[in-house]
Amino acid sequence: MKDIGVGLIGSGFMGKCHAMAWRSVGGVFAAAGRPKLAHLAEVNAEFAQDRATEFGFEKGSGDWRAVIADPKVDVVSLTAPNQFHAEIALAALAAGKHLWCEKPMAPSFAEAEAMAEAAKNSGKVVALGYNYIQSPAIRQIGALLTENRIGVVNHLRIEMDEDFMADPEIPFNWKHDAKSGYGALDDFAVHPLSLVSVLFGRVARVVCDMAKPHAERTTADGQRRAVETWDIANVLMRLESGLSATLQVNRSAWGRKGRISAQIFGSKGTILFDQERFNEFQLYLTADRPAEQGFRTVLTGPQHEPYAAFIPAPGHGLGFNELKIIECRELIARIRGEAGTRLIGFDEGLEIERTVHAMALSFQEGGWVNVR
Amino acid sequence: MKDIGVGLIGSGFMGKCHAMAWRSVGGVFAAAGRPKLAHLAEVNAEFAQDRATEFGFEKGSGDWRAVIADPKVDVVSLTAPNQFHAEIALAALAAGKHLWCEKPMAPSFAEAEAMAEAAKNSGKVVALGYNYIQSPAIRQIGALLTENRIGVVNHLRIEMDEDFMADPEIPFNWKHDAKSGYGALDDFAVHPLSLVSVLFGRVARVVCDMAKPHAERTTADGQRRAVETWDIANVLMRLESGLSATLQVNRSAWGRKGRISAQIFGSKGTILFDQERFNEFQLYLTADRPAEQGFRTVLTGPQHEPYAAFIPAPGHGLGFNELKIIECRELIARIRGEAGTRLIGFDEGLEIERTVHAMALSFQEGGWVNVR
Amino acid sequence: MKDIGVGLIGSGFMGKCHAMAWRSVGGVFAAAGRPKLAHLAEVNAEFAQDRATEFGFEKGSGDWRAVIADPKVDVVSLTAPNQFHAEIALAALAAGKHLWCEKPMAPSFAEAEAMAEAAKNSGKVVALGYNYIQSPAIRQIGALLTENRIGVVNHLRIEMDEDFMADPEIPFNWKHDAKSGYGALDDFAVHPLSLVSVLFGRVARVVCDMAKPHAERTTADGQRRAVETWDIANVLMRLESGLSATLQVNRSAWGRKGRISAQIFGSKGTILFDQERFNEFQLYLTADRPAEQGFRTVLTGPQHEPYAAFIPAPGHGLGFNELKIIECRELIARIRGEAGTRLIGFDEGLEIERTVHAMALSFQEGGWVNVR
Amino acid sequence: MKDIGVGLIGSGFMGKCHAMAWRSVGGVFAAAGRPKLAHLAEVNAEFAQDRATEFGFEKGSGDWRAVIADPKVDVVSLTAPNQFHAEIALAALAAGKHLWCEKPMAPSFAEAEAMAEAAKNSGKVVALGYNYIQSPAIRQIGALLTENRIGVVNHLRIEMDEDFMADPEIPFNWKHDAKSGYGALDDFAVHPLSLVSVLFGRVARVVCDMAKPHAERTTADGQRRAVETWDIANVLMRLESGLSATLQVNRSAWGRKGRISAQIFGSKGTILFDQERFNEFQLYLTADRPAEQGFRTVLTGPQHEPYAAFIPAPGHGLGFNELKIIECRELIARIRGEAGTRLIGFDEGLEIERTVHAMALSFQEGGWVNVR
Repeated sequence: MKDIGVGLIGSGFMGKCHAMAWRSVGGVFAAAGRPKLAHLAEVNAEFAQDRATEFGFEKGSGDWRAVIADPKVDVVSLTAPNQFHAEIALAALAAGKHLWCEKPMAPSFAEAEAMAEAAKNSGKVVALGYNYIQSPAIRQIGALLTENRIGVVNHLRIEMDEDFMADPEIPFNWKHDAKSGYGALDDFAVHPLSLVSVLFGRVARVVCDMAKPHAERTTADGQRRAVETWDIANVLMRLESGLSATLQVNRSAWGRKGRISAQIFGSKGTILFDQERFNEFQLYLTADRPAEQGFRTVLTGPQHEPYAAFIPAPGHGLGFNELKIIECRELIARIRGEAGTRLIGFDEGLEIERTVHAMALSFQEGGWVNVR
Repeated sequence: MKDIGVGLIGSGFMGKCHAMAWRSVGGVFAAAGRPKLAHLAEVNAEFAQDRATEFGFEKGSGDWRAVIADPKVDVVSLTAPNQFHAEIALAALAAGKHLWCEKPMAPSFAEAEAMAEAAKNSGKVVALGYNYIQSPAIRQIGALLTENRIGVVNHLRIEMDEDFMADPEIPFNWKHDAKSGYGALDDFAVHPLSLVSVLFGRVARVVCDMAKPHAERTTADGQRRAVETWDIANVLMRLESGLSATLQVNRSAWGRKGRISAQIFGSKGTILFDQERFNEFQLYLTADRPAEQGFRTVLTGPQHEPYAAFIPAPGHGLGFNELKIIECRELIARIRGEAGTRLIGFDEGLEIERTVHAMALSFQEGGWVNVR
Repeated sequence: MKDIGVGLIGSGFMGKCHAMAWRSVGGVFAAAGRPKLAHLAEVNAEFAQDRATEFGFEKGSGDWRAVIADPKVDVVSLTAPNQFHAEIALAALAAGKHLWCEKPMAPSFAEAEAMAEAAKNSGKVVALGYNYIQSPAIRQIGALLTENRIGVVNHLRIEMDEDFMADPEIPFNWKHDAKSGYGALDDFAVHPLSLVSVLFGRVARVVCDMAKPHAERTTADGQRRAVETWDIANVLMRLESGLSATLQVNRSAWGRKGRISAQIFGSKGTILFDQERFNEFQLYLTADRPAEQGFRTVLTGPQHEPYAAFIPAPGHGLGFNELKIIECRELIARIRGEAGTRLIGFDEGLEIERTVHAMALSFQEGGWVNVR
Repeated sequence: MKDIGVGLIGSGFMGKCHAMAWRSVGGVFAAAGRPKLAHLAEVNAEFAQDRATEFGFEKGSGDWRAVIADPKVDVVSLTAPNQFHAEIALAALAAGKHLWCEKPMAPSFAEAEAMAEAAKNSGKVVALGYNYIQSPAIRQIGALLTENRIGVVNHLRIEMDEDFMADPEIPFNWKHDAKSGYGALDDFAVHPLSLVSVLFGRVARVVCDMAKPHAERTTADGQRRAVETWDIANVLMRLESGLSATLQVNRSAWGRKGRISAQIFGSKGTILFDQERFNEFQLYLTADRPAEQGFRTVLTGPQHEPYAAFIPAPGHGLGFNELKIIECRELIARIRGEAGTRLIGFDEGLEIERTVHAMALSFQEGGWVNVR
């Protein structure tokens, strides 16, 4: 089978992460073959060339259109800033490329809808960069739910917290401007919702409250300016299945660094997960002997797909970047038409964004809102 | 100072716990003196006498009125079932007794209001049995908040979970009948609200969702009957101070045994607490050196009031029953007119119940509800 | 059955703790009856009377001989300083009293031997205050071992650490004088050895190293003086059963407050315990499904003897003082001739002290030493 | 600067891990350049060619001598079985190649000495694969020790446990044969000793005990055969600095998957580390306010070298394989003559093996043994 040609647009945090994944995927998963790192685009030719050298791409260009036009490129990794997603994605799909696009899809829901429509018509494979769904722990949790290991799930709580916006001394920046979106809802809510999507399905209705820990911040010219986005959002949800759930996100949560915490309660047990320790999960089973029931801390290992491709010994730990390698493997497998792949495409991604907009609307209107 | 004469009405879980507290309080806190365990009432004379002997009371009676009429009794410990609270409390106050009443106040809000009114008019000391507010960890957390150690608090999340109702095989019982109340809101929500009351003040408005993990249960005669109460409740709240908060309670949460989890986020740090490990709390401070910031697990010890009265060495651990001894000490101190006591009286208790009723109303009406 | 008359000698940390236990035991364990707190001795009559009032004893005396001579006293709680243990214990046994003696038995092994001999000849019940063996978690661990739940135990590691001696600024005091004993071996090693005694049996041979974190300290008159005792001791051990084990103790371990950590490895699983969280233990079982194996944190509850006597709900937590109440219950039961009681008597206590002396000898001689 | 040409000998667990590191190092650390994966050797030509393709090497050969003779190869990654280390290492050094050799150096101490001698004479850079020393947490711990953050270190405890040999049903294999070495001492003790080497220096004397959890195992032909190696080893140590320390290793420790646990006690604080959660460490400081002292769980992030090269956001977690990328970066830097690199070379490696042999000797002789 022909090895895949890769184009990369953008070389920041996520661009570097995609490059690492493309370079490493074949060495980890032999079946993934040897992707050819063909063409990288950045904002100007010189920077693009430097990054191409650093990241191991054959060529660098100052215009993303060159990447899309390159016949050596089969799949485009799109890691440019969000406001360019729609234009580039539509162009890549129109040019017959597969697409690996960082989340979220686009600032406006209308653009996201257009992207989803284009993807559907193109017949190409599209993956959004929701890599938290890829960890061995989350996959094992999914398997446990599928086999009803904790019985019927009757309640779900999910939180996502970091502290990058917690410092009151951070100057006013674009993320405090309403043009950047709602705040924590965009930055964070989408990630837990990707887990909800994979593990539990669609959200039916929501009621949301939001808060600003810091009402004002100081601008570059020393003025105090009102912050227009919300670092905190709290949501009560009902899923289409009827499941009661809550979602809480906070980007000003001192001490939290990459926490996505889930509590999944069932009729025969409970599952706990925390992304800050994503190489483990906790499981409580009523099947255990009464005097021995307790939450087990299960360290992931070769028993948990696809850990063994990385390390043959259990409990040694994967890294965040390696989740992206798994995502890359899934993308390649789907391009090749393999069954059973796990990805958030534009359809599921659009649903996530629809849910986020419903949350924001609920806050504005002050009551329950149906997602559809 | 004269030692206090004690009457106890009821001898179940909480009755035994009150008796332990009365017997132990003087040995732990020398200033509390030596309460005289004077008179115990139970449902019949023989059982009352047995219990009196077992618990160390001088006398047992089959009628609670005898306890209230007993001139040796200065304070009545009221641990009878909830439906008798109002009648007994009003009688005790009318007889000039101080009152230590288990929570909640009464099944109906009207009764609770009457009790609060009577207490106010009586001039007697009244304490509700909200003992979770008494632990050294919660007191230390309060002290940290008072001195602004984590800056301005901007978000609060609080949960209370146990699993005593989680088993689908539990037969239909009185707690599944709507006459017993709302479910988790009454059983659990009041406890976290007691912490909110002591640490943060009053709740202004709420929106609540509730859920039933088990829609039906089997009655004693083998029929399936619809469960009428709600094991799960989730609430978005705004406090009178403007603080955004959430409250989540679940009495069907497998694996949780006595969890009251609080996350308190501030502008300079974060405090975490979990009642299942109530001899410790966690503290994150931005005042720490950047490369050394992390959540500290602080084991309580003699530095944390009133641990030292129990044990001179740190980290050895208090038990649940010992929180009741602290509560008893506070009650005695308040009766003696000492300053700085910490108790939930009928006023604060009424406010907690008002808040719970607002939550239930919100669920029925499907939107935000003001508490007052 | 006649209620037991209690005499207490000493009213410090442990004296207060014994008093609490005697006062509370009957209310917790109905079968324990109502001990009569008859007579308390302290260093002078006035202080003794104050303490008697505070602790609820009928009478106080300035001479311990008065307690032993008191016909109302059936059992003597001996909590005076160690150097008085032998004289008082021998006198109490000679007077036909049962004895509850705080550990260690006596400063010299010869005295301890005399005490053990006297106890044997007296036919009276003797209990040493090794209360860590009494917790529901340790009892459950014992039950698991008895039923071979983790298979054949093949390795044991046990540590005891606190930090009360860690501060270099603590002035030179009697515990730094060689007359006080070896140091951590006396203060701490005896506690883990009490667990070893109850769970695994006798120690056969040892090799020991000791260390001084602080070579000198400042005396009251401002001089630097060499510290003569050892805050740290590390021991390799073989039990009579052949089991390989290690023991590590450190009374200068900053951050440790009451840690007794055990790791018990077997052919089918592992058990972990930490006294700082003694209301839980951890259990790993190979009987679990492979992808679900992990350490369970089991919170103790009514399933774990004798938790239910204190609290009917699981996971609510006992306190350190309540371990003493259990010890007191065991003592009463043994006095009454009940079967299955768990106590460290003078025989087992002597064996523990023999083992400690062997450790010290090993350090002096620089090699393996047989305990017997 | 010329990019480095890489030869890889062996393609098992560690071979794959080296290949990943060589492929990824330039994308993570731009300064590392773009190593050329030139030549891979395996046991036959076909397998070598398959692996070369899979791992991204230009060429594969069935004879390791071809790799060493290849002028495109500047550095040899040596991941063949231990018994071949000496021959290949000596040949590579003789051919003027730098060497990255998996641990341990060689089965016999004489071979290891010869390797160290050859390395010294060659002037080439040699690195042993002790990658646990490379994590951001261990580096931060080193920095804290260097600046005396916890004062004078006065005690060290270190453990390494896994359970790969714990199952009694594992058939007798080469690791149970005395020809494979001592057992846990070779497999595990060297890793903690690499941390001791980097953080605390050389070991002066030891006393060691060893144990066999499983005395016999079943051979392929169904016979029971005595196990000749020791899964458990326990050691008391004194370092050349005088520091008292203990080392405990167990490869039959059910539930432990990759645990290397360190407790470092100092005069002003304590540091704890566990490799199973190597993205964090714990720190207790007496500099904290008394009522707030506790162990902080510090999640590593960009503040901790060299985390930031992998991920710009804190707390997201590195994986085990990424420690090897850091090791590779250090190797390249040392080849380039950069200062401040952290590696275990043959000199330090020889010292580690000398220490292990002293431990084994101590067990045989039954007493303390000097390492030199």
